[in-house]
Amino acid sequence: MSKKLAGHAPKNPLLSPRFGDIATFARLPHTRELKGVDMAVLGIPFDGGTTYRPGARFAPRAIRNASVMNRNVHPDHGVHIYEKLSVIDWGDINCNPLNLKKTFDAIEKDYGTLLKAGVLPIAMGGDHSVMYPILRAMKKKHKHFGLIQFDAHTDTADQAWGEKFHHGTPVRRLIDEKVLEGKNVFQVGIRGPLTSVDQMSWDESQGITHLGMDEFHATGMRTILAKLDTGIPYYLSFDIDGIDPAFAPGTGTPVVGGLSSYEALSCVRKLRGLKFIGFDLMEVAPMYDHAEITTMLASALIFEFMGLAAI
Amino acid sequence: MSKKLAGHAPKNPLLSPRFGDIATFARLPHTRELKGVDMAVLGIPFDGGTTYRPGARFAPRAIRNASVMNRNVHPDHGVHIYEKLSVIDWGDINCNPLNLKKTFDAIEKDYGTLLKAGVLPIAMGGDHSVMYPILRAMKKKHKHFGLIQFDAHTDTADQAWGEKFHHGTPVRRLIDEKVLEGKNVFQVGIRGPLTSVDQMSWDESQGITHLGMDEFHATGMRTILAKLDTGIPYYLSFDIDGIDPAFAPGTGTPVVGGLSSYEALSCVRKLRGLKFIGFDLMEVAPMYDHAEITTMLASALIFEFMGLAAI
Amino acid sequence: MSKKLAGHAPKNPLLSPRFGDIATFARLPHTRELKGVDMAVLGIPFDGGTTYRPGARFAPRAIRNASVMNRNVHPDHGVHIYEKLSVIDWGDINCNPLNLKKTFDAIEKDYGTLLKAGVLPIAMGGDHSVMYPILRAMKKKHKHFGLIQFDAHTDTADQAWGEKFHHGTPVRRLIDEKVLEGKNVFQVGIRGPLTSVDQMSWDESQGITHLGMDEFHATGMRTILAKLDTGIPYYLSFDIDGIDPAFAPGTGTPVVGGLSSYEALSCVRKLRGLKFIGFDLMEVAPMYDHAEITTMLASALIFEFMGLAAI
Amino acid sequence: MSKKLAGHAPKNPLLSPRFGDIATFARLPHTRELKGVDMAVLGIPFDGGTTYRPGARFAPRAIRNASVMNRNVHPDHGVHIYEKLSVIDWGDINCNPLNLKKTFDAIEKDYGTLLKAGVLPIAMGGDHSVMYPILRAMKKKHKHFGLIQFDAHTDTADQAWGEKFHHGTPVRRLIDEKVLEGKNVFQVGIRGPLTSVDQMSWDESQGITHLGMDEFHATGMRTILAKLDTGIPYYLSFDIDGIDPAFAPGTGTPVVGGLSSYEALSCVRKLRGLKFIGFDLMEVAPMYDHAEITTMLASALIFEFMGLAAI
Amino acid sequence: MSKKLAGHAPKNPLLSPRFGDIATFARLPHTRELKGVDMAVLGIPFDGGTTYRPGARFAPRAIRNASVMNRNVHPDHGVHIYEKLSVIDWGDINCNPLNLKKTFDAIEKDYGTLLKAGVLPIAMGGDHSVMYPILRAMKKKHKHFGLIQFDAHTDTADQAWGEKFHHGTPVRRLIDEKVLEGKNVFQVGIRGPLTSVDQMSWDESQGITHLGMDEFHATGMRTILAKLDTGIPYYLSFDIDGIDPAFAPGTGTPVVGGLSSYEALSCVRKLRGLKFIGFDLMEVAPMYDHAEITTMLASALIFEFMGLAAI
Amino acid sequence: MSKKLAGHAPKNPLLSPRFGDIATFARLPHTRELKGVDMAVLGIPFDGGTTYRPGARFAPRAIRNASVMNRNVHPDHGVHIYEKLSVIDWGDINCNPLNLKKTFDAIEKDYGTLLKAGVLPIAMGGDHSVMYPILRAMKKKHKHFGLIQFDAHTDTADQAWGEKFHHGTPVRRLIDEKVLEGKNVFQVGIRGPLTSVDQMSWDESQGITHLGMDEFHATGMRTILAKLDTGIPYYLSFDIDGIDPAFAPGTGTPVVGGLSSYEALSCVRKLRGLKFIGFDLMEVAPMYDHAEITTMLASALIFEFMGLAAI
Repeated sequence: MSKKLAGHAPKNPLLSPRFGDIATFARLPHTRELKGVDMAVLGIPFDGGTTYRPGARFAPRAIRNASVMNRNVHPDHGVHIYEKLSVIDWGDINCNPLNLKKTFDAIEKDYGTLLKAGVLPIAMGGDHSVMYPILRAMKKKHKHFGLIQFDAHTDTADQAWGEKFHHGTPVRRLIDEKVLEGKNVFQVGIRGPLTSVDQMSWDESQGITHLGMDEFHATGMRTILAKLDTGIPYYLSFDIDGIDPAFAPGTGTPVVGGLSSYEALSCVRKLRGLKFIGFDLMEVAPMYDHAEITTMLASALIFEFMGLAAI
Repeated sequence: MSKKLAGHAPKNPLLSPRFGDIATFARLPHTRELKGVDMAVLGIPFDGGTTYRPGARFAPRAIRNASVMNRNVHPDHGVHIYEKLSVIDWGDINCNPLNLKKTFDAIEKDYGTLLKAGVLPIAMGGDHSVMYPILRAMKKKHKHFGLIQFDAHTDTADQAWGEKFHHGTPVRRLIDEKVLEGKNVFQVGIRGPLTSVDQMSWDESQGITHLGMDEFHATGMRTILAKLDTGIPYYLSFDIDGIDPAFAPGTGTPVVGGLSSYEALSCVRKLRGLKFIGFDLMEVAPMYDHAEITTMLASALIFEFMGLAAI
Repeated sequence: MSKKLAGHAPKNPLLSPRFGDIATFARLPHTRELKGVDMAVLGIPFDGGTTYRPGARFAPRAIRNASVMNRNVHPDHGVHIYEKLSVIDWGDINCNPLNLKKTFDAIEKDYGTLLKAGVLPIAMGGDHSVMYPILRAMKKKHKHFGLIQFDAHTDTADQAWGEKFHHGTPVRRLIDEKVLEGKNVFQVGIRGPLTSVDQMSWDESQGITHLGMDEFHATGMRTILAKLDTGIPYYLSFDIDGIDPAFAPGTGTPVVGGLSSYEALSCVRKLRGLKFIGFDLMEVAPMYDHAEITTMLASALIFEFMGLAAI
Repeated sequence: MSKKLAGHAPKNPLLSPRFGDIATFARLPHTRELKGVDMAVLGIPFDGGTTYRPGARFAPRAIRNASVMNRNVHPDHGVHIYEKLSVIDWGDINCNPLNLKKTFDAIEKDYGTLLKAGVLPIAMGGDHSVMYPILRAMKKKHKHFGLIQFDAHTDTADQAWGEKFHHGTPVRRLIDEKVLEGKNVFQVGIRGPLTSVDQMSWDESQGITHLGMDEFHATGMRTILAKLDTGIPYYLSFDIDGIDPAFAPGTGTPVVGGLSSYEALSCVRKLRGLKFIGFDLMEVAPMYDHAEITTMLASALIFEFMGLAAI
Repeated sequence: MSKKLAGHAPKNPLLSPRFGDIATFARLPHTRELKGVDMAVLGIPFDGGTTYRPGARFAPRAIRNASVMNRNVHPDHGVHIYEKLSVIDWGDINCNPLNLKKTFDAIEKDYGTLLKAGVLPIAMGGDHSVMYPILRAMKKKHKHFGLIQFDAHTDTADQAWGEKFHHGTPVRRLIDEKVLEGKNVFQVGIRGPLTSVDQMSWDESQGITHLGMDEFHATGMRTILAKLDTGIPYYLSFDIDGIDPAFAPGTGTPVVGGLSSYEALSCVRKLRGLKFIGFDLMEVAPMYDHAEITTMLASALIFEFMGLAAI
Repeated sequence: MSKKLAGHAPKNPLLSPRFGDIATFARLPHTRELKGVDMAVLGIPFDGGTTYRPGARFAPRAIRNASVMNRNVHPDHGVHIYEKLSVIDWGDINCNPLNLKKTFDAIEKDYGTLLKAGVLPIAMGGDHSVMYPILRAMKKKHKHFGLIQFDAHTDTADQAWGEKFHHGTPVRRLIDEKVLEGKNVFQVGIRGPLTSVDQMSWDESQGITHLGMDEFHATGMRTILAKLDTGIPYYLSFDIDGIDPAFAPGTGTPVVGGLSSYEALSCVRKLRGLKFIGFDLMEVAPMYDHAEITTMLASALIFEFMGLAAI
């Protein structure tokens, strides 16, 4: 009944049960051979850019464990991922927990390799600081692209304790370096008290679009879908703290009042039709999770990314 | 102020505090004497049909512990359960954790006894495989009945690893054996990626009604309420994984993006007016619960079942 | 860029990280000197009035731990709390875990001192029984005031086991003693089965307004906002169990089917424009919390109270 | 092969699995009929005498849950409990969480009934304050008896915050009232820093024997066994905090550096040959337990008590 | 400084940190190519033979996660495992959670393959029932061998609920089938109450040696080391419940009063000099673990097995 | 009865219960005024030197919470700490989670201030890397001193991933810089597999004394007490992972087979009579703790340090 697979695909759960075998993402083959590969899931086990609760270095392993429950066909898009795309688990980038600079260099280099091979990368972070080297690598391949970000935070701070690089600054740095343009940055789930009255003024000056929770509850994704320039491709970055801590307790800087799991999945599905150059799922801190509810949600969101890529 | 009780009723919390005494369901009398009994809560501590996380064998005990907080009067229906019905905690069916067949036989036999005595049974599962012997027993008493099922999964798989009986197959088996007709099967909360493109085709061929989450968010229970044949009685089966893992983490095969607790309670209330021949609450796995939030919800849903039975 | 602070304000997180230093509420100065102080956060570590799960005696400490993530500016009201108000962490009232009477006397006395000094108090309970001495102290200063209460329970029981004072009776006692008038009592989030058919008749006879979950989902806060007498000031009491246990598992008598975190925050914000004479956040039981999701929500609600006070 | 049972005995685990059925202690019959009964396990769900972490009100229910793993024959004593003694689960004493006085009265009264019927009682506390009414009831029946207590604390404080009755004072009160004589009080596991230099002087003046951890590691129970007056019967009270928190985390005032589980079991076994008039297991606070390790140990200690009673 | 490796060895932690990359056992290569392989770690994710708490099906994955902290050199034996042996992670045997018979067949077959290739197998269970097919496979290769078992239970029951195969019966079945001889079976850590007075008589009649906890504390492993026939090889089976639940809470049928972690490691080391034909580590149930203390201990014990194999 | 206090002392628990008030260490006064102060407890919330599980940045706050149970008099030494010494909670050093260098500078500077004022410092780490700046500051004041370290690890690695400063290297760096001499370094609790055969050769070449677990179980602290040069003062550093994870699960790089809580406390007590220039308690990672058993033990060990300082 099933059509031919495109190449690499998950292990068949009717041959070996999902709780068995070594936990690669969705029980996909783990290989570094990129020939014929369309899409790769990879881990970035780094939390050296964390300002509150660390722990995201353990996220790739934990998301892999939960991902064994993933399936093949997206029910809304009606697409069988693995009939369309050959997908692998590439493994993890070698991060140095003691050295942000070396880690960023390794990320930028490995992304270079993946992009050069024409592979669409899906990263399991890692704290959000690693979006900086990822998008620098993207810039070398893609001239213009936008950013769609789900997050409780804007990540546009300038510094903390004199440090320019941490998980609260990547969007600022990337706009500073012209990797991104503010008008092509769309952020969903932004909420919570501010440090200063003018905290948002830089964002406004850059033309960044924030979709706060009140507006989201009033209009959903409509504002953003209307404003998006559909002529450029997008990078989709999903900080798990865009979601409410009831649904995603396993994260480092949770903010109450966020998206529900249904809303999160539904928002991503609505991006159907855009062209994507990469995806990531960031800031899962598994030691704060319970019964894998956060990692299962992370894994389901990555499946949504695959759906967007496969249609 | 209170009218006369119908018979068996919970221990008075003003005589002995709710945290005290032996934990029967809602602190109801535990007896096997069925004379004069209208309704019985019973446990089916079996998880031998589980394909992912086992543990539901401990559900009856855990739900009983949480149920001591249950009260008497349904606030919407305005009915005092125990003025209308004499209710007992029957105890547990003797399940054999190593033998699905013997367990199914025991269930079918015990249900036979309960039904013969005219007792309305409310089961605390157990994994969902046990719906198979329950409904077989029902069929011996009730010629025609439908199934209203809350669940993330359709439970219409044909087999796994060559096994025809597990918690993913009871609806298929029951339709195969003509215990159920597909057109009288209504499933709420179905969601999540599929294994194959044609996974739903058998269900469609049988006329099973699925209410997915998008449709639920658009129209609530309306579609189902409109389609239900009100001329037949129904069995109501509630797999706790119909609810989102944020509200019900304590289960074996959670699927993100499900019902909230309010939505779940509210959906059950909307079934008011139908005639029910039995109820169950399945798939609670207490070792994955936190602070009893799943078991309290399970217990509250059972109270809703009692409300439907008492009006 | 920042204007002049009004007086006491939180420690600067760019000088010392939020995870560092001794955990006062929001890292505010801890002092008992009330001169020039506009508002004080204080703890009432008492759970001697608890009828089910005790543990709220540990709430003030746990909420302080989570509150270090609080910030300065309310994003909707556009107000910098600490430019408007000088705020302190007053510490805890000396509660006697073995003696409810002595504890109530201590609370009433300490509130007298705070109110005499013109300080707006925000209490971190403690079980809800302590609202009784708080409002008695309020009554000595404020002739007329109403109560806006978020709660799953009405707290209008007459007694339990012959005891007139516990966390289920404060509203009854306060109306009995004419501290409150029923028509000025507004309760949001009331839900769950009842003990008797006429459980709500006393409340109705007193003119208390209940906003149940069905009405809330239909009309939000509109009914209450329309009925409120804006000519009198209000005391706002937030029992964390007004919120669903998925969002606030850390509490003693949770009731499923409650408010989401977004709904809770949003409801409080809608009270903007009323005059408040005091606030409290009650019934957090941290040993039932997970990953601080309850205490972070409690802390965010207290920030909302500060917002209402500062505009 | 098995001899005749003495009367009431646990449900047979080969007929219904241990995880099934309503959780009475060791799956013993629950009855209040005392005729022919030799020994009764009963719960005292009270924590109103707690000075630090409350929660012991939930201990009886939690210990019952863990106790379903208990068996019949003591391996060292070579005795089949239920061939020697008819044992029941009597249920719980009605405690008033808001009123220590009324609770003490209820305990004293119920113990009077049990003792009058010639039943040997084994209590599952509750906080240690309830030893006071228990031993007062004992005194009415038994003229002379000693106390063997396992505990991190001496429970000989005079008061706290002006309160004479709490879980730190029962031994003092009982000696004050001549229920106990200090020379017949033997305490094992006493440890930890003191409040004042002369904290132990009252104990010494009364002739109480303390077995601290250094002496225990040097000589085991020898000192105590040598000093015990074997001409009088004993009451054995086991505060679970006598054991190290690694083995018994689920308690309210843990003290590090305590007995291991093996040492605790072994110490109790060494009391073989003494005559006992009653037993208790106190201060389990299940919300601080993990994976039932504390309640399983509590349940195993109660089995040891049964062994001492049956030989 | 390091000598030449024997073949397959763990990933270098100085190239990629231990928290990174896909979690194979000890970050060893995962392959099914057996040529040149000396030893293989493999998973048996099966808990269909469990009589109390299931969950061991998740053990292999959880032990792999913890095992990334394993190192290379045994400090007492002074041996670098991987300079002596080429070791792989073979992955998991395909177990059928619904069918014990098919699972046993798969295990026996896969062990046949491994043994035929001359590979020394180390199994991560799985419940203890799977020792039955393992040793049946062993018997086909090795004419005579003994069993050294660490366990709280003897696993010599005859049946439960009429079932001959479950985790309490493998030793009985293996002796029945002449795979083992009782005189060559040595069990360490046996403890806890018995079901019947004559529970141990079959074991005694077979000549099985039990080392209980009292004897262990008196003489350590001496009795066993003296009785062992050093002329035959041994299979070493370690049920994690041989260890006290304080050190190993993550298991299905814990028994208090067991070995400490130091004692467990030390006992295994003392077996140095014997010849081993296989090893296993059974009955880890990770959902009952805390902070990986059980899985880290399991992983350390497997390292001890490797040490015994490499010297 | 109590003699005059030496100066600053804990809040009286009979005036305000231990669970109340803001959690400073042992409820000591929090001040930075050093005049008349003998000893200060301070926090170093830094985990930027962690190679496996981070989280120790939250240790000072968590240890403070547990420390409210601390008392005044050391039962073995018979000394009332606060009659001998004026003690404060100094608060935390401003650590920069993103910059190890700046953090080390801040630590060295703040220690300089404390030492200059003649205050004996007790640090709550933080990961063990911070011992490096602490001892550098010590060296400026004290010409010769030794190190007594409780730890599972030697902390004498040369580097990891090219980084010279992390929690595995401080002892190496301090010997390299002549702050310490190997012959004056004594390490208790060292255990676990090694990375290479010659891992210990540098330590041996420096004359460092390791007390492994086998030797500890054979002879206790005797070897070390015999070798210590009593003519020099010592710095005592206690890495909580010297203790077994059953007793101290809340740490980042646990090693099974370690000290029990009793052994740990007892070892520290045996150092009585030595002169100490400072103490620390390192590597508590509270998110891995359960029911505060690790932080209570940490707090009890700090009380032992106070005992050593006060006699």
